[in-house]
Amino acid sequence: MKFIIQRDKLIASVQDVMKAISTRTAIPILTGMKIEAKDHGIKLTGSDSDISIESYIPAESDGMVHVEEIEEGSIVLQARYFPDIVRKLPEKTVEIEADSNLKVTIRSGKAEFNLNGQDAEEYPQLPKLQTDDSFELQTDLLKNLIKQTVFAISTMETRPILTGVNLKLEGKQLKFTATDSHRLASREIPVKEANIEFSSIVVPGKSLNELYKILDDTDEPIEISVTNNQILFRTKHLYFLSRLLDGTYPETSRLIPDQSKTVLYVNTKDLLNTIDRASLLAKEDRNNVVRLTTKDGQTVEITSNSPEVGRATEEISAKSIEGEELKISFSSKYMLDALKAIEYDEVKIEFTGAMRPFIIRPVNNDSILQLILPVRTY
Amino acid sequence: MKFIIQRDKLIASVQDVMKAISTRTAIPILTGMKIEAKDHGIKLTGSDSDISIESYIPAESDGMVHVEEIEEGSIVLQARYFPDIVRKLPEKTVEIEADSNLKVTIRSGKAEFNLNGQDAEEYPQLPKLQTDDSFELQTDLLKNLIKQTVFAISTMETRPILTGVNLKLEGKQLKFTATDSHRLASREIPVKEANIEFSSIVVPGKSLNELYKILDDTDEPIEISVTNNQILFRTKHLYFLSRLLDGTYPETSRLIPDQSKTVLYVNTKDLLNTIDRASLLAKEDRNNVVRLTTKDGQTVEITSNSPEVGRATEEISAKSIEGEELKISFSSKYMLDALKAIEYDEVKIEFTGAMRPFIIRPVNNDSILQLILPVRTY
Repeated sequence: MKFIIQRDKLIASVQDVMKAISTRTAIPILTGMKIEAKDHGIKLTGSDSDISIESYIPAESDGMVHVEEIEEGSIVLQARYFPDIVRKLPEKTVEIEADSNLKVTIRSGKAEFNLNGQDAEEYPQLPKLQTDDSFELQTDLLKNLIKQTVFAISTMETRPILTGVNLKLEGKQLKFTATDSHRLASREIPVKEANIEFSSIVVPGKSLNELYKILDDTDEPIEISVTNNQILFRTKHLYFLSRLLDGTYPETSRLIPDQSKTVLYVNTKDLLNTIDRASLLAKEDRNNVVRLTTKDGQTVEITSNSPEVGRATEEISAKSIEGEELKISFSSKYMLDALKAIEYDEVKIEFTGAMRPFIIRPVNNDSILQLILPVRTY
Repeated sequence: MKFIIQRDKLIASVQDVMKAISTRTAIPILTGMKIEAKDHGIKLTGSDSDISIESYIPAESDGMVHVEEIEEGSIVLQARYFPDIVRKLPEKTVEIEADSNLKVTIRSGKAEFNLNGQDAEEYPQLPKLQTDDSFELQTDLLKNLIKQTVFAISTMETRPILTGVNLKLEGKQLKFTATDSHRLASREIPVKEANIEFSSIVVPGKSLNELYKILDDTDEPIEISVTNNQILFRTKHLYFLSRLLDGTYPETSRLIPDQSKTVLYVNTKDLLNTIDRASLLAKEDRNNVVRLTTKDGQTVEITSNSPEVGRATEEISAKSIEGEELKISFSSKYMLDALKAIEYDEVKIEFTGAMRPFIIRPVNNDSILQLILPVRTY
């Protein structure tokens, strides 16, 4: 195997593929990165057996040459050193060569690295998804769906199914839902092209977080294929495969109250900043509890209290407050997460009393829903 | 006590003073920050009893008003919350008020924080330096002196004296020296104004690192006073007091060879980048050892070797090589630290054989000296 490659292209691909490579894996060769040279380009592969990522660098694209002098072949390189070496090489191009004894030479300018490779034949064959069932989405929309929901997954392994995000595609509506049983985040969008439906698959939150980091903010399409135990995200040069979580995701729709006793309309950023400040004195308590009190149908008071340290109080003007007066306590962290996910200037918050879950939504947009369970305070 | 202060001024001062405040201190009140309001301005104080920092915000400077409506008084506030509160306040001004029950109110816009203060009378009196013996330096020069030497101090408590930087002021020459007994860094500069001399004081490395972070890169003067157990750095609005280390600093001058067998002139950045790359494959070894070999009076080869992983080789062209051929091994980390401290385009490296310490200096500048002990390799 031999090729000469543009260093910046190689760096970008190596970074993407590294997201799937773990130093802790039961299969030692998976701590390495597979490099395959074919006439038409170079493919890098990394996997921790939960997530597998392939990144492809075409020999030529858009009239630009990225890889030259390709001699076909493949090798596995230790991933611990390879990214740093590539990043620090002196020239704009890199020559990579592997001989029949699995000795790899990396050259750039006068710098030469000789590394011990491993036989690519010993690298596990990645499962190829046997399905034509897929749908398409804009990449930046997918990133938004992930960002607006994945923070609400559970980080505790007591209910493993809650460490994933629930995906549902029905009637050309795609819905992401995440909950840790104290709060819930969901987002729904219409999908144009779809030849499948599924009612409930669960993608590990870790997979979605890594995918989010790799994807560019572009309106290019991303193709998503689903089988009963895997999900594949595919763009032009990227192939991201994740296992699905086993188990039944809880029915969340009945958590969402369909009535409300108090409705608050308020500027998102005002509320966010006020709660952020109040949370500074809510730290003593594990739950970072702050209290919200409506006042005279126009004003909201946010307070927090740490007996040893002191208290914070701040009033903000609401756009409007409808219904009953309210005093309610909740986790400032959950509220901050939810408000950050809203991405609209104004929010509508629907309460059904101090002990019932409440709902946060953008005004005039029901596709984003954030739900938080209040905290009892005495 | 009461005053209204520009928030950005307060933030900057609080950040500086926080550098001296530790959560681990034998004297509980030192986890707090002392605030004193006087007619002419506000003084903040923090101390961990090794380092004490005072920052002063004048009521007015350069025709700008920074503090208004001052009612004199003082209070101690818990430092754990105060900086975050000030940073997150909504408006450009902050009102701080303490009542006779030590209740402190911080107001900005509609945000109000009520904190429990402590009696400033209980805050330890900082030792005032009783001396007129001082000298002056440009602040940016002092920062340079620190940066070029402090990295070479020992981090091990086995020889506490080596965790400090040795300062010497004789014949209007100020010299900083640091060594961990494997390498040494020193820098000497002339001082214009000085009414003292001292042959050997040792300032804790930690103090100099904190001072470095606080000082601005300005050519404004900084006044330095020294007694037998303390050193004071004073600028217009800052007062930085550190204890000195007890003990005798080792005589380092005889470590420095006065002859050389091989002299190498080379571009600093070329050598730095090459060693940086080679160090990637020197990690297996605790000492990050790389090897330097002179070749044909014109070329230097840098190599490293990690038996399990592979080897790196790179040649660089020297400006010139004088004297005997040489093979020498040394810690890449020490060499990188030394080269970064040089700050000149070209370096001169003087070797006295593979087993003797070698010296790195800028070409045509003897005021900066870096010394490294080689590593035996077999």
